[in-house]
Amino acid sequence: MAEIIYPRMAVIGCGLIGSSIIHAARAAGVVGQVTVADASAQSRERIEALGFADLVTADPAEAARDADLVVFAVPVMAMGEAARAAASAMKPGATITDVGSVKAVVSEALSEAVPDSVFVVPGHPIAGTEQSGPDAGFAELFQNRWIILTPQAREDDPYLEAVQRLADFWTALGSNVERMDEKHHDLVLAVTSHLPHLIAYNIVGTAADLEGVTQGEVMKYSAGGFRDFTRIAASDPTMWRDVFLANREAVLEILGRFTEDLQALSRAIRWAEGDKLFELFSRTREIRRGIIAAGQESAEPNFGRDHRSADPDTKPQ
Amino acid sequence: MAEIIYPRMAVIGCGLIGSSIIHAARAAGVVGQVTVADASAQSRERIEALGFADLVTADPAEAARDADLVVFAVPVMAMGEAARAAASAMKPGATITDVGSVKAVVSEALSEAVPDSVFVVPGHPIAGTEQSGPDAGFAELFQNRWIILTPQAREDDPYLEAVQRLADFWTALGSNVERMDEKHHDLVLAVTSHLPHLIAYNIVGTAADLEGVTQGEVMKYSAGGFRDFTRIAASDPTMWRDVFLANREAVLEILGRFTEDLQALSRAIRWAEGDKLFELFSRTREIRRGIIAAGQESAEPNFGRDHRSADPDTKPQ
Ligand SMILES: NC(=O)c1ccc[n+]([C@@H]2O[C@H](COP(=O)([O-])OP(=O)(O)OC[C@H]3O[C@@H](n4cnc5c(N)ncnc54)[C@H](OP(=O)(O)O)[C@@H]3O)[C@@H](O)[C@H]2O)c1
Ligand SMILES: NC(=O)c1ccc[n+]([C@@H]2O[C@H](COP(=O)([O-])OP(=O)(O)OC[C@H]3O[C@@H](n4cnc5c(N)ncnc54)[C@H](OP(=O)(O)O)[C@@H]3O)[C@@H](O)[C@H]2O)c1
Repeated sequence: MAEIIYPRMAVIGCGLIGSSIIHAARAAGVVGQVTVADASAQSRERIEALGFADLVTADPAEAARDADLVVFAVPVMAMGEAARAAASAMKPGATITDVGSVKAVVSEALSEAVPDSVFVVPGHPIAGTEQSGPDAGFAELFQNRWIILTPQAREDDPYLEAVQRLADFWTALGSNVERMDEKHHDLVLAVTSHLPHLIAYNIVGTAADLEGVTQGEVMKYSAGGFRDFTRIAASDPTMWRDVFLANREAVLEILGRFTEDLQALSRAIRWAEGDKLFELFSRTREIRRGIIAAGQESAEPNFGRDHRSADPDTKPQ
Repeated sequence: MAEIIYPRMAVIGCGLIGSSIIHAARAAGVVGQVTVADASAQSRERIEALGFADLVTADPAEAARDADLVVFAVPVMAMGEAARAAASAMKPGATITDVGSVKAVVSEALSEAVPDSVFVVPGHPIAGTEQSGPDAGFAELFQNRWIILTPQAREDDPYLEAVQRLADFWTALGSNVERMDEKHHDLVLAVTSHLPHLIAYNIVGTAADLEGVTQGEVMKYSAGGFRDFTRIAASDPTMWRDVFLANREAVLEILGRFTEDLQALSRAIRWAEGDKLFELFSRTREIRRGIIAAGQESAEPNFGRDHRSADPDTKPQ
């Protein structure tokens, strides 16, 4: 058992990510008491029943009182309001973090909401499943996954110590810690996560609206590739609405590039330019090899996923 | 052990699909002798070493001689040439089939190439992995997967019997048999397979060409959703070039719809229309539930895939 890093941890919003943090932190032995605030009465009931928290409340301030670490794990656009609700109870010297999938907007919202006496260190674990809610959480979710911290531009020792303590916390949970500028985070994630989700939502929506092909046929023959998109496109609607609203500029920029490239590809098909198609398809194959080499994937047909293994930022059923 | 359905089976093009058919047919006990023709010297060497064929040759005619079933499992645009090369040796009354991912073009090419005395029954198994070549094949690939047969428009008894015999063969291999008009097949698969592949190739290509984000970052944070696209975009370049050339019209039609929808989605993001996003994201979630209910997927995070389980039409590494 490791040493306790945070004697008291508060989790505000205890769904998939919030509850997974609690399970993982308890398994690692790095927290003492754990308090939870959740807006949903149904979730609170489940959290009580699951018994992994020492205090369950609807009031963020009650949960945050005396906490050494406060983790905001609500949808991105709800972060500001949740932080304002908890602010008055925050202990001077406490660390305030979050797990939101967009960082610039959240970082600003948190910083504005909380007193100067606490340390704001935003973060984003690149791990998730398609499930949501407190029943979906599990301790292994963050194992071997990246956690990106986007600390503020300050260099004073107490702040740097707070950042280091949070990095140690995530390391204890099994994650690999990376520090990054928040704007850069939002651009990188627009590419690796937000655009893929947008495209998946779109293609599944398009397929649903076709006249010539029935929904039954789409489902029946989904093993042809479509199936993978439906998994991504089953991600939590609230979470993803918020992501696109909060990371609008970067998403639209990357989407513009994607659309340009798609037009070129469409032209190549129209004019039967087989060589162009072959060249692109060969190039993309190499990228896959790179990802397998980077350890983010295995070459096995089961996709390197075992039951409950940590999965993409987002995989609802 | 079942009864032998085809005393002699020839497989022309013995990669992933061709070799899987041989493994599955032998396991089911529905074939006697098996002959193989493959254009690649390297593949022929591997096939000899693997020892699953009674005859291995470069010459399609030699393999097809005296065969009761001839299965063409080469890339879609190579079907016509392969069939012409084998035609002279075909036994009257033999069944000629294929496994190509596009049906109208292949059906026409096969029919033109072969003598009137044989029965042409095109087919497409909706099963595959991202691997290719004869080493990638395995007997369970077609278990519980659909095989779509697109018989010709003829109603004479000998032909209908040949179709039924081929359906029985695939049933013995573990597949569920469906009959469909070839044009309709090409439209359905444009939606469930060809467009998803095109989109995946495109997004991976776009990501590779960005200035602000390095390839290393794309790989590192690919678990955010991008990873799933890279798997699809690692599919065999030759096979997929041929699919897009052979199914141009249907692919461009569906791509047009996809692009329209994407523009509307882009506008909704630009104008921060959260309700529109939420509505679409909720709708697509239902489709996922339909696919799980249709038995084409499981709700488990491992995606219902166990080691070597049959996978989407296409999943190269
Ligand atoms: N899912 C992923 O794969 C993933 C990965 C990395 C990061 N993230 C980020 O993690 C955060 C949480 O995602 P999640 O997947 O854990 O979602 P989730 O399972 O839906 O959990 C969110 C929880 O927060 C509650 N909540 C919503 N607004 C609240 C508020 N104002 N105050 C208190 N509680 C509130 C929700 O209650 P209700 O049910 O009443 O709404 C729900 O119980 C999001 O910011 C997301 O961007 C998610
Ligand atoms: N992969 C899938 O997921 C999947 C699923 C359903 C249907 N299909 C269809 O199945 C067919 C084969 O795909 P596959 O995945 O099995 O490909 P594969 O593993 O690459 O095998 C194709 C084999 O055919 C050989 N070949 C190519 N042209 C030939 C010719 N003219 N004569 C004789 N042999 C030739 C290739 O040799 P070289 O190596 O020298 O080219 C290779 O050994 C394609 O029509 C594809 O559309 C594929």
